Amino acid sequence: MDYQSCFAAAVTRVKAEGRYRVFADLARRVGTFPMAVHHTPSGTREITIWCSNDYLGMGHHPAVVDGATEAVRTYGAGAGGTRNISGTTHLHVLLEQELASLHGKDAALLFTSGFVANEAAISTIARILPGCVIFSDELNHASMIAGVRNAGCEKKIFRHNDLAHLEELLRSVAPERPKLIAFESVYSMDGDFGPIREICDLADRYGAITYLDEVHAVGMYGPHGAGVAERDGVMDRVTVIQGTLAKAFGCMGGYIAASDALIDAVRSHAPGFIFTTSLAPAVAGGALASVRHLRASQAERDRQQERAAMLKARLHAAGLPVMPSSSHIVPVLVGDPVRCKQASDLLLDEFAIYIQPINFPTVPRGTERLRITPGPLHDDAAMDRLVEALLEVWGRLALQKAA
Amino acid sequence: MDYQSCFAAAVTRVKAEGRYRVFADLARRVGTFPMAVHHTPSGTREITIWCSNDYLGMGHHPAVVDGATEAVRTYGAGAGGTRNISGTTHLHVLLEQELASLHGKDAALLFTSGFVANEAAISTIARILPGCVIFSDELNHASMIAGVRNAGCEKKIFRHNDLAHLEELLRSVAPERPKLIAFESVYSMDGDFGPIREICDLADRYGAITYLDEVHAVGMYGPHGAGVAERDGVMDRVTVIQGTLAKAFGCMGGYIAASDALIDAVRSHAPGFIFTTSLAPAVAGGALASVRHLRASQAERDRQQERAAMLKARLHAAGLPVMPSSSHIVPVLVGDPVRCKQASDLLLDEFAIYIQPINFPTVPRGTERLRITPGPLHDDAAMDRLVEALLEVWGRLALQKAA
Repeated sequence: MDYQSCFAAAVTRVKAEGRYRVFADLARRVGTFPMAVHHTPSGTREITIWCSNDYLGMGHHPAVVDGATEAVRTYGAGAGGTRNISGTTHLHVLLEQELASLHGKDAALLFTSGFVANEAAISTIARILPGCVIFSDELNHASMIAGVRNAGCEKKIFRHNDLAHLEELLRSVAPERPKLIAFESVYSMDGDFGPIREICDLADRYGAITYLDEVHAVGMYGPHGAGVAERDGVMDRVTVIQGTLAKAFGCMGGYIAASDALIDAVRSHAPGFIFTTSLAPAVAGGALASVRHLRASQAERDRQQERAAMLKARLHAAGLPVMPSSSHIVPVLVGDPVRCKQASDLLLDEFAIYIQPINFPTVPRGTERLRITPGPLHDDAAMDRLVEALLEVWGRLALQKAA
Repeated sequence: MDYQSCFAAAVTRVKAEGRYRVFADLARRVGTFPMAVHHTPSGTREITIWCSNDYLGMGHHPAVVDGATEAVRTYGAGAGGTRNISGTTHLHVLLEQELASLHGKDAALLFTSGFVANEAAISTIARILPGCVIFSDELNHASMIAGVRNAGCEKKIFRHNDLAHLEELLRSVAPERPKLIAFESVYSMDGDFGPIREICDLADRYGAITYLDEVHAVGMYGPHGAGVAERDGVMDRVTVIQGTLAKAFGCMGGYIAASDALIDAVRSHAPGFIFTTSLAPAVAGGALASVRHLRASQAERDRQQERAAMLKARLHAAGLPVMPSSSHIVPVLVGDPVRCKQASDLLLDEFAIYIQPINFPTVPRGTERLRITPGPLHDDAAMDRLVEALLEVWGRLALQKAA
């Protein structure tokens, strides 16, 4: 058995499809974001990042940097154990209270990542409910798919945002069986919204509970940054709100917010929560400062929305194929993995602009794209350079422009 | 469908078994560990932690605190994306190089936790090898079990550390099928060692590869703290070494070290690696400082071994039921979940000593225990107080003493 050849072949397959990933070795510097230093074999150079999920630049916000630094200096670099075995640092308690309050729920529970939050919470909730059926949007994130799969229960996949299809599937299951509808508020690769209110209506009608992934929305939408459910006034109708501390909040880690009973059940049963060291104090301290700041401050959200609208308008005006997106995410269609990678490489090498190619399995084949995430720190001059560079790259690679 | 009652009932079942977890709300203070401040509803008080997995106190070591602080001040509170989408911070690259070098392997790969490392790496490796059979020690950690389960392939569980049983199972599988043997170097709840050399011999004989979890050993064993495989001179014979940055290294996060081909395959295929924000700079910076320090310094390891041997001797002399353990972990048998919790509560409430009860599902029912982790910072006076308090608690609860 030649194991090494097997592993090499698994990589060769990825390369043959043009979707082999080369990680850009970056050093973001506090105070200079969205600029960063790119480490390459031939040296370092300054680039502009246009694809960060630190949507609001909060990872470099003075209050957040101070919160993280202060936490390390006070509590140390690590928590020292699982939550149950000496690893509950007082900051975790304060952060969970803050997140519960943000979402108007009884309680919240921290996980080491948003991925783990989805995997652990969905699979555990479904296992607790005897005979549960999960209804899952077909475009749900890989972490939700992991949760659904590991639940081991019956599942029904509904067409993306298709309420009629969801209702048809709900109707097909016996009324007395527990039902969990899992969906997102902002689908991160297309930038479209899930119909939260309408899905809650269906949940009420068919006796289901709802699990809403707001990872691309927390900090970003709603008057306190609690997400799209807050913006739409339906936060109290969602059973479980899941969020991340790693995107708009600029740190790391994930969480759920829900009723006391549900949180206590997940806390007591989820292996992905129980058997892992809790979040480092720096992460909890930084996140606490970030959540508190964005609950009170609207400025970052307003500026980000303005920048996103401006960029979409400018790309449209330039005839570039912006995919329809009602959110802050600005995807530009390429439609081929090899040329998507080429476009990204050209932007980086010749224009010092970093936008990662998004290929399968992150998006369906044939919809490969550049996914741009403008933030409050991208100024007009940077936007000028971006649009010019994209036009040049589109020309050189003879990519399809807008229809 | 009354969902809230279902969730409440799931908690009631845990409570009825006496294994409901109440997290101690702690504030470890840099410079005072193993002392910590315990937050309770009636106020705060000073306690001594005897159950931390920050085995060497590195989470509070000046070099580590400085490394973490410096990383936050330089790079910010979060990485801002997945490794592929702008989230590779130069510190991740340096840390992976350091870990590969530590274990004498081509390459290493970081994960957000040791749990995720095991789940993602084991399941991905097995999926890549067509027709793979996993041979898993029956006492493997929950995270390895998650990896084996999510691999979806055939699995065979061998009796704990039973080489004859493992060989019997290996022999039962066709020679041409890929085989992965998954085991640990230190089993954390009993503190015994896995027979690494002998398992590698069997792997050679039956054409298997080996996956060794060293999370309770990295930093702790071997002349450079690379683990038990380093101590035993068999590091090069193990295919994959998995470790954590959250225990002896005092931070957070997990990793694997292996051949270039294997690492690149896991990097390119594992959802739990691909779809998650990378480790926060504070974590990577702290861990880098910690690994570098413990590669060069033997003092912490020596002192920790001396403290563990001393505590075992003193508990034996006092007639307390220390479970046989050849490692740094000192488990004391209680054998009942309710009384195990009572013992822990008494120690905390009356003696200001914090040792978490370890109950099912972390250990098998009937083997509930207090798991003590003496460290270099526990002095003789603290040990005196611990032994006296345990004797008092054993008397009051009429617990079984040593046979």
